[in-house]
Amino acid sequence: MSLTLAELAQLSGSELRGDPACRVSSVGSLDDAEPGQISFLTSRHFEHYLARTRASAVILSRAWADKSAGNVLINENPSLAYALIAAALTRPEKPAPGVHPSAVIDPSAEIDATARIEPNCTIGARVRIGPDAVIGPNCVLAEDCEIGDGSHLVASVTLGSRTRIGARCLIHPGAVIGADGFGLANDGGRWVKIPQLGRVILGDDVEVGACSALDRGALKDTVLHDGVKLDNLIHVAHNVEIGESTALAAQVGIAGSTRIGAWCTFAGQAGVAGHLEIANGVNISGLTAVTRSIHEPGTYTSTVPAMEHAQWRKNFVRIRQLDELSRRVKALEKILQNRGDEESLADRDK
Amino acid sequence: MSLTLAELAQLSGSELRGDPACRVSSVGSLDDAEPGQISFLTSRHFEHYLARTRASAVILSRAWADKSAGNVLINENPSLAYALIAAALTRPEKPAPGVHPSAVIDPSAEIDATARIEPNCTIGARVRIGPDAVIGPNCVLAEDCEIGDGSHLVASVTLGSRTRIGARCLIHPGAVIGADGFGLANDGGRWVKIPQLGRVILGDDVEVGACSALDRGALKDTVLHDGVKLDNLIHVAHNVEIGESTALAAQVGIAGSTRIGAWCTFAGQAGVAGHLEIANGVNISGLTAVTRSIHEPGTYTSTVPAMEHAQWRKNFVRIRQLDELSRRVKALEKILQNRGDEESLADRDK
Amino acid sequence: MSLTLAELAQLSGSELRGDPACRVSSVGSLDDAEPGQISFLTSRHFEHYLARTRASAVILSRAWADKSAGNVLINENPSLAYALIAAALTRPEKPAPGVHPSAVIDPSAEIDATARIEPNCTIGARVRIGPDAVIGPNCVLAEDCEIGDGSHLVASVTLGSRTRIGARCLIHPGAVIGADGFGLANDGGRWVKIPQLGRVILGDDVEVGACSALDRGALKDTVLHDGVKLDNLIHVAHNVEIGESTALAAQVGIAGSTRIGAWCTFAGQAGVAGHLEIANGVNISGLTAVTRSIHEPGTYTSTVPAMEHAQWRKNFVRIRQLDELSRRVKALEKILQNRGDEESLADRDK
Repeated sequence: MSLTLAELAQLSGSELRGDPACRVSSVGSLDDAEPGQISFLTSRHFEHYLARTRASAVILSRAWADKSAGNVLINENPSLAYALIAAALTRPEKPAPGVHPSAVIDPSAEIDATARIEPNCTIGARVRIGPDAVIGPNCVLAEDCEIGDGSHLVASVTLGSRTRIGARCLIHPGAVIGADGFGLANDGGRWVKIPQLGRVILGDDVEVGACSALDRGALKDTVLHDGVKLDNLIHVAHNVEIGESTALAAQVGIAGSTRIGAWCTFAGQAGVAGHLEIANGVNISGLTAVTRSIHEPGTYTSTVPAMEHAQWRKNFVRIRQLDELSRRVKALEKILQNRGDEESLADRDK
Repeated sequence: MSLTLAELAQLSGSELRGDPACRVSSVGSLDDAEPGQISFLTSRHFEHYLARTRASAVILSRAWADKSAGNVLINENPSLAYALIAAALTRPEKPAPGVHPSAVIDPSAEIDATARIEPNCTIGARVRIGPDAVIGPNCVLAEDCEIGDGSHLVASVTLGSRTRIGARCLIHPGAVIGADGFGLANDGGRWVKIPQLGRVILGDDVEVGACSALDRGALKDTVLHDGVKLDNLIHVAHNVEIGESTALAAQVGIAGSTRIGAWCTFAGQAGVAGHLEIANGVNISGLTAVTRSIHEPGTYTSTVPAMEHAQWRKNFVRIRQLDELSRRVKALEKILQNRGDEESLADRDK
Repeated sequence: MSLTLAELAQLSGSELRGDPACRVSSVGSLDDAEPGQISFLTSRHFEHYLARTRASAVILSRAWADKSAGNVLINENPSLAYALIAAALTRPEKPAPGVHPSAVIDPSAEIDATARIEPNCTIGARVRIGPDAVIGPNCVLAEDCEIGDGSHLVASVTLGSRTRIGARCLIHPGAVIGADGFGLANDGGRWVKIPQLGRVILGDDVEVGACSALDRGALKDTVLHDGVKLDNLIHVAHNVEIGESTALAAQVGIAGSTRIGAWCTFAGQAGVAGHLEIANGVNISGLTAVTRSIHEPGTYTSTVPAMEHAQWRKNFVRIRQLDELSRRVKALEKILQNRGDEESLADRDK
């Protein structure tokens, strides 16, 4: 597929400076794009490639536009313009509908005539698969699942019973949606399983990364609202609710019954304790532990940055003495205060 | 299925206050249960629903019993009573035994006549599957595995050769049990694989969460004793031993050869270094790093709680200066001591 | 298979002290080896077993050789000697080549006549599988993948399109290689997917642990060089590059576009932020957050070691006050300095 720069400018809402009839057929990075490719610049680190790129055109923000002698598409959100253009140039062919004969499908399942079921899938009783949905190879859908229009389970995805996936969702390999939550009652040392009776409900346009595990609710449902994006190896426990367009990076874990607002971001390996409320618009840094509810938007962090091991040894032993150190400082202050140094001490916050 | 409150009181060991003949057929949460459902109260947060629930009966502890005008089942462990009652009301039908024709089963495998093998499974040589066991769709059992009575591999579970699963175990989708441990010898910069020759042995009543990975021993076995419960995305390295009824929450990692006692709990994302001993009855908090053996029961923590990013920036830069700060305080104390302030300094611990 | 000690000494580059004709047929641990087995000693913790082991021979370093009355193979790297000897004694039979009839293979795939494809696999268009490769049960290879000579996908492995696996790689169950990277552009709160067009390229002799997820590049490729070893549940984001013979322990996460050098080690649950450079020969401790590039070899740490919960409560509240505490110490120093105590303060670093 090839498109003109005029067409790409229009579909991405960009201003074109250059030849509207110039055609490009694929995307490339600034340093190794060939003629016939379009590239982009979103980071200062790659600015030096701009002068010598062989790309037929470059997507960039206005601030950089004057530094390029070639065709440019100017957009204040060049990442977005790139996403739209790359999607237009690489749109895969719609796969042919149909059910592969190696798939094992319960006779009570309802599969739309435009859907596609790939080899070695197992699809349970009363499953409903919507128009244009694609169930990739070796997926398992337990009974009573529903898959919305145009959703794609890439391969090796497993859904527990009654899982509901909205429209245009993308579920990557190894993801498990709708396994039992971790619900246990203790009977004098012995654990007794609490039946996990809820479902997992995914809204529209949700993406779930490879090997992520989303548990069904204990009694009510686990819910991911429209536009939620999950990276790989994420744990979402039972009864969690995640608001619209919130994005979780890899290896994040959300404990049970926590409710996360909309438009939040969680960086990798962050962990959130159970039964908390996180407001809309909260950003959590990587490897950060959220142990209390957060009521105000903003960025929250507890990442401990790596240091040289010798420095770490010297300093981290002191963490165990912090309380004592604090008391010692208090004692020193008291001595000096008794001697009439209040004024000097009051200076400390300046 | 429906049961009377008298029956439910008996099976859960609860005291009934109300109508013994009242029948309930399912469970519901306090706020949206319907007549014909039984609910429960285990947290102060939901107490306000008690007065206006439409549930036919509520399971609760004695302290709350007087606040309900309706039928109540009184139990000092309402979570346990709920678990038993919910299980009784939702007991699934026993699935029909038999081997699905799409499963590929080595002729030397021994499958009990009452077991069930679902579609697209691959079962290796000399595997033995006990009575009433269920091997869900798309599971792989390598050669010489043994599955005990009534165990259930839900779907898409993979077992390495010689893995032994006890009775009544529940293994969730995506779990991998018996892959090679991470054993490497270094040959001048190049890694040489150390053959992983041990097994994974699971006792009875073990639960393994979605996408958890339990490695076979290097030479001896990796062992999880009876009643161990693992949540999702957990790593158990080679030669680990986990004692009876210990429970690990999601994303916990246990490094090689560590031995964990019985009745321990590990909260999410905790990590334990290799070759350690953890006593019985130890509780580890979330995102905590266990770097030394723990010989006494109790709770251990190193969670760094999230704070506002600006506050974090200001304070965390000081961690690198902790040792220096400690020395500065020491110097100040020395000066004042030299001046005869010992008495005041001795006050600091009061 | 059995081999003489003379043969084992030769293949492992060890010095034999004892009977060269003595035959051993398997390996065992020092405490429970039987005659006919060979054992090893690599840790002081097991030294006391040396005197009473029943093993026919023991692999150990020279320092321990005099403490054994029996046959010994002396090697300054006994782990390596053990790895070589255990591999020689346990070498599995080469599995018979051939394609299982239950595998679904696109007619355009090219499968070497010496390769083996196990049951319930799904293999896409134009996939190329090299000599002696083994694709275990229930694997999925999307279109245009390449598998090098002698590589082994154990079972339930999923490869995204165009993934390239070198020679002699070992990929454990549940691993997902070549799923989409987590690339999103923000359009006023709504996420727009950035097409992920790169590949994952694995060199030769790479090992990937169970349930690890390696994402394809966004535009260029994600690359793991020869001899890279990954444990379980690891996340490697798009465009990451990992140098030769670097080893990552379980649950490590590497964010996008980070470049890691050769001969590095990462302990469990470490996390590395995106767009960083890590030099050759860097060792990262467990649960450590790498937030900046590292230009010098060495060990880097930010692990916070677990302590008793009460001690933690007392000390960790002070972390939020560290900056204030530091200012208070500064104020005290100033007071004393004004009084002419400079000399004493200068002592603090001694």
